Amino acid sequence: MNRVGIVGYANTPFTKEEQKIESILHNSANQLFKNNLKIDKKLIDSVLVSTNNNSKYLSAILSEMVGIQPKIAHSIESLCNSGTNSIVSAFSYISSGLAEMVLVTGAERVDSPGQILEWDNSRGEFKHPIFWASMFSKSYKQEFNISEEDLAIVSVKNHKQAQKNPNALSKKTYTVDDVINSKKLTEDLRLLDCSRPCSGGASILLASEQLCKKISDNPIWISGIGQKTTSAGFTKNESLFSMTSTKQAGDTALKMANKNISEVDVAEIHDAFSVCEPMALDALGFTKPGEGMNLIKKLHDTDNFMINPRGGLIGCGHPLGATGISQTIEIVKQLQQSAEDRQVNNPKLGLVHNMSAAATSSTVLVLEK
Amino acid sequence: MNRVGIVGYANTPFTKEEQKIESILHNSANQLFKNNLKIDKKLIDSVLVSTNNNSKYLSAILSEMVGIQPKIAHSIESLCNSGTNSIVSAFSYISSGLAEMVLVTGAERVDSPGQILEWDNSRGEFKHPIFWASMFSKSYKQEFNISEEDLAIVSVKNHKQAQKNPNALSKKTYTVDDVINSKKLTEDLRLLDCSRPCSGGASILLASEQLCKKISDNPIWISGIGQKTTSAGFTKNESLFSMTSTKQAGDTALKMANKNISEVDVAEIHDAFSVCEPMALDALGFTKPGEGMNLIKKLHDTDNFMINPRGGLIGCGHPLGATGISQTIEIVKQLQQSAEDRQVNNPKLGLVHNMSAAATSSTVLVLEK
Repeated sequence: MNRVGIVGYANTPFTKEEQKIESILHNSANQLFKNNLKIDKKLIDSVLVSTNNNSKYLSAILSEMVGIQPKIAHSIESLCNSGTNSIVSAFSYISSGLAEMVLVTGAERVDSPGQILEWDNSRGEFKHPIFWASMFSKSYKQEFNISEEDLAIVSVKNHKQAQKNPNALSKKTYTVDDVINSKKLTEDLRLLDCSRPCSGGASILLASEQLCKKISDNPIWISGIGQKTTSAGFTKNESLFSMTSTKQAGDTALKMANKNISEVDVAEIHDAFSVCEPMALDALGFTKPGEGMNLIKKLHDTDNFMINPRGGLIGCGHPLGATGISQTIEIVKQLQQSAEDRQVNNPKLGLVHNMSAAATSSTVLVLEK
Repeated sequence: MNRVGIVGYANTPFTKEEQKIESILHNSANQLFKNNLKIDKKLIDSVLVSTNNNSKYLSAILSEMVGIQPKIAHSIESLCNSGTNSIVSAFSYISSGLAEMVLVTGAERVDSPGQILEWDNSRGEFKHPIFWASMFSKSYKQEFNISEEDLAIVSVKNHKQAQKNPNALSKKTYTVDDVINSKKLTEDLRLLDCSRPCSGGASILLASEQLCKKISDNPIWISGIGQKTTSAGFTKNESLFSMTSTKQAGDTALKMANKNISEVDVAEIHDAFSVCEPMALDALGFTKPGEGMNLIKKLHDTDNFMINPRGGLIGCGHPLGATGISQTIEIVKQLQQSAEDRQVNNPKLGLVHNMSAAATSSTVLVLEK
């Protein structure tokens, strides 16, 4: 399999403002070109858009706006992991030889239609994601004797870390009490346990090994890819306190990269809700089942930004189509030692975990210098 | 580049009925499994959905409905050539080694939101595709001294050919007079010059060379792929009587397949409107500029089904996300000598042309036994 590297990126601020989807796409891609003045747009032969927005032909529209005439151009949607699905698509285009350089731009409006899955009748009337998150929270707490104070630490930690990320939606830190006393959405979920919808964009540029070496001093390589969809409703998880698709995607990605989870120095984890972070750490093998919270507490106590350095979805906000790309960019920056105040100590190996709809599908990427 | 073959397919009838998008997807994929009872679903490791429908997570939903737990799963949208974009994506997943067997299912409802492109301000108030088709018709007629009677033959031919295709929307033949006397939409366009929106689905199964040889007696190989997006508005065509993106996509696909256009025995051409067929024949090099109608007339007079044997978009109807897949299936059937009453004489090489929005983007596939 031909190697594929990341040679450029741009994050734009995540915000509660209503913005036009075309503007979000354009601002993000434009910022990428400003960040990488040496990139010759003519070499970009594919443009993929990651979004849940209902507008059509956005990839051709973005291409026209930034002055690219690509070969391959289309939109990709898979709810909350549209972003990493698009990155994997770009990888496959390059690895197969159909493309040399692919621009992937994710964008979402604060009112994204992807925030509620109309189809999932296994949830009865409870189509909003807070209901599966609530069931996960109750189950995880019961199974592993975790308290709501414990889970609140995820939110406290990720809001804290987001303060070091100028593009994050969160501009405040919170205490455990703040989280527990925030608006009660269900018996097991408070407002501050949730990531928030927002407008946001993120762009990343992938290239073939040959091209990477020509145009970049420090490309980051995608060495592992794992994906798994178990179902569309959430009833096919092995249990309500584990993430089957995440486990399988993680195993596949690490195997492809020929690495062990213990070698991962920094990771972006899909904390759509606070309970998702320990559950994903368990599923990926960072911790034994039920021990994810212990690792999170330890990292929080020592100000170690190893997990979700940019602030996670809870700290950054969650513009669905942009999230997986923004997560990947953070790992690229960490591996390039350019993550400013949130830099983890000399990381060599990074991991991205991005999932959809109660972990019914997951993508895991392994990235290396 | 690893070879990729087509090992299964299913067309379902195109209809004016309103159907649920999930039902269209399910019926189509289910028919594929009925047509190919030997296919082990467990070997299908990716599921791609091609559609302009606004529903989200359709690939996971389809996967759950047919009992597949894929690695890769997402929806792909690029207006009218979503179908071939999805096939090219499947090709790249297999060719890169990320997947072994990919199910691609296209589906559209008769009320598809992809029928009007809101964004294209270069068209002023004229967002509906009949306006660009009208301008193309006027320009092509003026430039090459073509009459409206000439163009009407495209519709007459394709409705005639559709009568041999039980899945086609058209159940009637028409005369040149019928076309010219059908409802006047613009000065240069009559109702019967247009393909019609409809509900419809189409599924195709692609596999690696190794797997193809194991499970199929007569796989059809995708030997050439070409894609090009020139813009989102239609103002970047070289002229209003030529298709720049089609020319470039065709050249790329033929070069990849190491073939000349003269070697093509059967072709599906994206006749969204009657003028598109001669324009595409010119752009692909079947004919010199302006001579596409001569070939069409000759084929029509001799009952030669070489171009658009299934009846084209005008005869079959145009369920956007399914069209490119249905076109590809027709070429597969022709090459497998299983196209029943519309079989072309012993074809060895086939071509698919699928485009979007005034030929602002085009995909061309070359298929071989």
